[in-house]
Amino acid sequence: VTDGHSPQAPARPGDTARTRVRRGADKAGYDRGVVDAVLDAGLVAHLAVTEADGQPYVLPVAYARDGDRVLVHGSTGSRLFRALADGAPTCLTVTLLDGLVLARSVFESSMRYRSVMVLGRATLLDGDEAWAAYARLTEHLMPGRWDDARQPTPKERAATLVLALPLDECSVKVSDGWPEDEDDDLDLPVWAGVVPVRTVLGSPEPAPDLRGDPPVPGYVTRWAW
Amino acid sequence: VTDGHSPQAPARPGDTARTRVRRGADKAGYDRGVVDAVLDAGLVAHLAVTEADGQPYVLPVAYARDGDRVLVHGSTGSRLFRALADGAPTCLTVTLLDGLVLARSVFESSMRYRSVMVLGRATLLDGDEAWAAYARLTEHLMPGRWDDARQPTPKERAATLVLALPLDECSVKVSDGWPEDEDDDLDLPVWAGVVPVRTVLGSPEPAPDLRGDPPVPGYVTRWAW
Repeated sequence: VTDGHSPQAPARPGDTARTRVRRGADKAGYDRGVVDAVLDAGLVAHLAVTEADGQPYVLPVAYARDGDRVLVHGSTGSRLFRALADGAPTCLTVTLLDGLVLARSVFESSMRYRSVMVLGRATLLDGDEAWAAYARLTEHLMPGRWDDARQPTPKERAATLVLALPLDECSVKVSDGWPEDEDDDLDLPVWAGVVPVRTVLGSPEPAPDLRGDPPVPGYVTRWAW
Repeated sequence: VTDGHSPQAPARPGDTARTRVRRGADKAGYDRGVVDAVLDAGLVAHLAVTEADGQPYVLPVAYARDGDRVLVHGSTGSRLFRALADGAPTCLTVTLLDGLVLARSVFESSMRYRSVMVLGRATLLDGDEAWAAYARLTEHLMPGRWDDARQPTPKERAATLVLALPLDECSVKVSDGWPEDEDDDLDLPVWAGVVPVRTVLGSPEPAPDLRGDPPVPGYVTRWAW
């Protein structure tokens, strides 16, 4: 993920056909369609805030894209979220790992991935806007859940900071290619290729304290990646 | 991932048995055994560096734990890696997503995850130490590959910054429990439970330009998570 490849076409998620021979492995770009597709496919973002002494902190957070912004939420007790609410400069990065790329050389070995970086400052939402954002966050992670689960009480809403980070300054990098070995390495007797990496959902497991015998909701059984 | 739960026992990776009824969902701690287990199970870290104006940047990177430190490597052409080599304060975070936790209430809904955060400053390695670190990085991501693939040339080594970040200041947070609904919510007619999330490897796909018909190496077919 760290090595610098040359630019190429954006990823088509899930497209790993052997027939697609593209030697260039990466694209760094600003295509909002690609940015949105990556943000919509992820579940966890990594969010940074820097202390006054220059020390950055990177925390995993749930998030959701909502049009031209990314929503996050956290506890009013969280120092990081309070700093974000106060307008601290932040970076939100979402990375999807798609495969291990085994080149004939160690140097050209890498990963298939899609990663979006958003820079800027977040805005604290309140009132109806915060409520709608809370619903959007829930629906991104757990589609169908907002209308089924018990929605937040005023006390719970008061304990939650809901923030919006605009997509004004964002970029996306996609690596979806094949090994890019030097010509001199192509005849080495070393297997080369890609080992796909996928994130999958297992079978739903009922809570031990579940009362009655409610079935797993249809909206949950339909979740898939 | 963002909500503040109460402390509990550390995760036993892969242990999601229904019989394990533990209402507390999280542990924040400094247990090096747990830190090491999470670092050893991950493939991608998120690494932050902050510019002079206070703007943090978070990049996905390959990494490996090597005893009491974490290794990363990047291009000499990368501004972020040059800043790290110059001793900029950094944060390296590794997060493993293990499940979606569907509580009866939206507020208590969350994720199962394991996350390690390492704070500090990296040191630039050179000579034999950089060589050994390069091998360790390769073996973490692709066990067995270092001795099979073509190893780096002096020119490739010169183009690569290999850095070590000590584990002196690190913490781990684990959420591996069940929904923690309020007592008043337990009788709601809402299904509650966990949808496991797993990262899996697909079948190896040979590079389109692979010459001859070498078999997939045994060390690759043995990879599993």
